[in-house]
Amino acid sequence: MLLYHDPRAPNPRRVRVFLAEKGVAYDTIEVLISEKAHQTPEFRKKNPIALLPVLELADGRVLRESMAICRFVEESHPEPNMFGADAWERAQIEMWNRHAELELLLPIAQVFRNTHKFWEGRIKQAPEFAEVMREHVAERLEWLDGELGRRSFMGGDRFSVADITAMCALDFGKVVDIRLNRETHPNLHAWHKRVSERPSAKA
Amino acid sequence: MLLYHDPRAPNPRRVRVFLAEKGVAYDTIEVLISEKAHQTPEFRKKNPIALLPVLELADGRVLRESMAICRFVEESHPEPNMFGADAWERAQIEMWNRHAELELLLPIAQVFRNTHKFWEGRIKQAPEFAEVMREHVAERLEWLDGELGRRSFMGGDRFSVADITAMCALDFGKVVDIRLNRETHPNLHAWHKRVSERPSAKA
Repeated sequence: MLLYHDPRAPNPRRVRVFLAEKGVAYDTIEVLISEKAHQTPEFRKKNPIALLPVLELADGRVLRESMAICRFVEESHPEPNMFGADAWERAQIEMWNRHAELELLLPIAQVFRNTHKFWEGRIKQAPEFAEVMREHVAERLEWLDGELGRRSFMGGDRFSVADITAMCALDFGKVVDIRLNRETHPNLHAWHKRVSERPSAKA
Repeated sequence: MLLYHDPRAPNPRRVRVFLAEKGVAYDTIEVLISEKAHQTPEFRKKNPIALLPVLELADGRVLRESMAICRFVEESHPEPNMFGADAWERAQIEMWNRHAELELLLPIAQVFRNTHKFWEGRIKQAPEFAEVMREHVAERLEWLDGELGRRSFMGGDRFSVADITAMCALDFGKVVDIRLNRETHPNLHAWHKRVSERPSAKA
């Protein structure tokens, strides 16, 4: 397997952490967004909408979208289980993975895109929207801190793909000064320490 | 099963169309966003972040997030299959369902939230961002029109959850004047006619 990725982007990191948890070996090709390598005609043959990550199989088949890639890997490498062991756990993990993505990762990405110098001159920025998203994330962190007071991990009492998404979102948040605070988010802070100590977090 | 929904919102419709395809019977409770019924303390007990849809099971368990709900129903009612019959088809359908959600439904929802009178005075609107999203959707429709020239449905050669997401997104787009055009999007236009003729489209 060959993973096209950018070491600094959060969605490729979701896949790298997932593959590390699975203990799956793979090769990588760096496609640096900072150098517009994702927009070359060559890369657009892999992904016409120029997004990362992309997984290429040995037979040349190509798969886009981080969660499509992770689910595909889960099928061929079922252990350790990351998407749930029965119907209800799978539903819970999907729900929390989507909360982590839609309520944290996407809003944080919008703060980044619409305020950060990195994107100046590359895209049309709307800083007013970024402020709305920044407030949104602050509210969601308060809510999630309460949730993490009732269980050890995002999707239940064990580590799952929902933790990977939330960890990648919050680590990426630092680039726009969105940070967990030990005093105001004690449960999330403890959860973040717990997931960050796993060897996969370095992937 | 009891579905909390708003008849006019796109995410609850994804679940209703899915349940119609499955032929599953269920009860409904309307939670009208226009009347702020999603923000009452009573509804927040079902969903603390005040989003629709929510599914409540006979035993009182509650599930949020349209795709978590659909996946859960797929487990108990496997036919007709909507998420893929083997690992590669499941990966393809997940990829296209995510494209339909992330590249169409979410951007269209942002155009709606950030420009429509419905939200005036309810949320902080950022019309500048809506314009960026409107351009984004136009580009993605052009791309998807090419894709639908090569197959009959979003995720392959048969109807799947990816078609439900794309149909609900594009039907919702009309409220902000995002429309398919027979001349510029001939393949998407034909696909839309095909999926809209299914009885489930009325759900």
